[in-house]
Amino acid sequence: MENRPHLIQALAVLGRPGSRDAIATPAAVLDLDAFEANVALMAERARTAGLALRPHAKSHKCAWVAQRQIAAGAVGVCCAKLAEAEALAAAGVGSILVTSPIAGAGPAARAATLAARLTDFRIVLDHPDAAAELGAAAQTPIPVLIDVDVGLGRTGVRDVAQGRVVAQAIAAQPNLRLIGLQGYGGHWQHMKGAGARAAAVAEGMERLRAVHAALRESGFDIEVVTGGGTGTFWSDAALGVLTEVQPGSYAFMDREYREALEGDPEGAFAQSLTVAATVISANHPDWVTVDAGLKAFSTDGPLPQPLTPGFEGCGYRFFGDEHGRLSRPARNVRRGDRVDFAPGHIDPTLDRYNVLHLVRGDVLEAIVPIEARGASQ
Amino acid sequence: MENRPHLIQALAVLGRPGSRDAIATPAAVLDLDAFEANVALMAERARTAGLALRPHAKSHKCAWVAQRQIAAGAVGVCCAKLAEAEALAAAGVGSILVTSPIAGAGPAARAATLAARLTDFRIVLDHPDAAAELGAAAQTPIPVLIDVDVGLGRTGVRDVAQGRVVAQAIAAQPNLRLIGLQGYGGHWQHMKGAGARAAAVAEGMERLRAVHAALRESGFDIEVVTGGGTGTFWSDAALGVLTEVQPGSYAFMDREYREALEGDPEGAFAQSLTVAATVISANHPDWVTVDAGLKAFSTDGPLPQPLTPGFEGCGYRFFGDEHGRLSRPARNVRRGDRVDFAPGHIDPTLDRYNVLHLVRGDVLEAIVPIEARGASQ
Repeated sequence: MENRPHLIQALAVLGRPGSRDAIATPAAVLDLDAFEANVALMAERARTAGLALRPHAKSHKCAWVAQRQIAAGAVGVCCAKLAEAEALAAAGVGSILVTSPIAGAGPAARAATLAARLTDFRIVLDHPDAAAELGAAAQTPIPVLIDVDVGLGRTGVRDVAQGRVVAQAIAAQPNLRLIGLQGYGGHWQHMKGAGARAAAVAEGMERLRAVHAALRESGFDIEVVTGGGTGTFWSDAALGVLTEVQPGSYAFMDREYREALEGDPEGAFAQSLTVAATVISANHPDWVTVDAGLKAFSTDGPLPQPLTPGFEGCGYRFFGDEHGRLSRPARNVRRGDRVDFAPGHIDPTLDRYNVLHLVRGDVLEAIVPIEARGASQ
Repeated sequence: MENRPHLIQALAVLGRPGSRDAIATPAAVLDLDAFEANVALMAERARTAGLALRPHAKSHKCAWVAQRQIAAGAVGVCCAKLAEAEALAAAGVGSILVTSPIAGAGPAARAATLAARLTDFRIVLDHPDAAAELGAAAQTPIPVLIDVDVGLGRTGVRDVAQGRVVAQAIAAQPNLRLIGLQGYGGHWQHMKGAGARAAAVAEGMERLRAVHAALRESGFDIEVVTGGGTGTFWSDAALGVLTEVQPGSYAFMDREYREALEGDPEGAFAQSLTVAATVISANHPDWVTVDAGLKAFSTDGPLPQPLTPGFEGCGYRFFGDEHGRLSRPARNVRRGDRVDFAPGHIDPTLDRYNVLHLVRGDVLEAIVPIEARGASQ
């Protein structure tokens, strides 16, 4: 029972075992059997492909999940922001890559503090000024990676020339050590069709390969090439540019991913994370009202999908900040009935909750904190 | 300086005075001058109209804001959910109306605990079974209101007959006391044009007036008729059905409300709440990337609007969970530049933040917790 120490620790803090039906709704609920299978499957695939696995914690923001991923073989986790890294570091996660560039002396000082505190802290940058800021703040040597724009256009150096300038700026800082490159194609992850994803990855990753080749020729020792997500796992593995992958959603899945990846090997992960809601009013002839609305689900992806038997075909619509409406099913519905939903987009959904409820079958095994919830700074 | 005691208390807990530029972004920032003017203006209008003011805390979820509203003359606050009420009660707010019906023995027990603990706790219900559940759980007499559906279709009794059934069920419970009615037309609040809003309010509120008349005839003493929002304030005041109003957004305003209410008296409130962001990458020729994305702004209303001089006309687009892209302004933009945004929809935006930064001009006066953030249960 490898999970026990963590569960017991969590139980001591936040809750006791009980019935799933006693969970106050709306609630983020993790099916442990499905979650454990997802975590094991991705770890096995990464091993098979010879890729280091560094799951992205922006999906879960939860130290318990990070520790489960690391126990299954992950080398550490990714964080999107410094505050996310600070929260997970405080909860004991020891190896963190921050995947977004930062700007300014204040954030540079925070990164330096994290680097001094963690066993293994690393961060990306995409501008020579960032190297100067971080170098000036560094209390200890900080491993850094150059972020390369592989076509998303969000962050990263855009060509070999920019890559060389940043590499030289890093080399000029005695307390920075260039260890790698990052290239993330967020726009590829939800493309429909494994072939379309593979073609897009192959084209975009040429930029990363070119920067890599140029820096190697200039004598830089690039140990790590990191990137990728749940949707492009096999494309990345086949292409061979990456040494490390950063999938996040595979642990939970969501409606957006399941619809995009249906039938593909990347879609073989189970829906482990659901949002539990309760019917709080059933006076209307055409629909019932549940207690989960704009503050309970992401609103940027597909609509939440009811999964509870008897409700599967019922259409959900947002009904204000705190409620949703669900078209009436064929079966009788009463106030107090529970309905579980597959969220549309997992990451912003989990960010709305303070705690994660761990269930196995109908038993609530534990409640763990989502430490980095809201930590977007 | 009536604010001082609260500010000093907040400072002791979370932060010290400093520069606005030192705030870690993305951040919820409250302009105190604008906020205080908004709070005073609504209090004055309610006094003039002879209406009790019970601002809705679902907009802010923050005890410091609730206490400012009460200090200006509000009779208490509304909460959308029990968890919101629990968090604000724990922070010292003493008069709370829960505006959503609840379902089941668990929530009824929580409501009864709140009623036993607070000076003035009240809750709505819309079904006879709810009266039985709450009556069974009550440790002390609980004042309740019947929620009436005035056309939104979300919650509430739908006609006089249903209203009578619920009133009788309440009367059958020795520990429940029927004190009033609630009717809220969320769908009217953002209607464009004061005339259109007034017509919709007049039509929908007929249902509330009918239930009120019927219960009065049956001998029920209805002290409170509560409802309304920022957008329908003057319509509600003119109609004369309500004794108490529940506006929330007026304290902050947002892009949705400002566009709907432009030029109307209800739109006379200033944009006091903004989200501060930082440009973290500026490598792309067509746009820059800021550190505020799907987890920093609501995504259900209009897009965030940049307010910082020089950025006003720049179009914002979501760029993933943690970032946004902003079209390049005419002026030069550098990594580290700050940009303030008017959020599209205030309530779900504030729910994404753990703290509220109180600023006056360029000075950060205090940081206060958003205690009920994420408390949708």
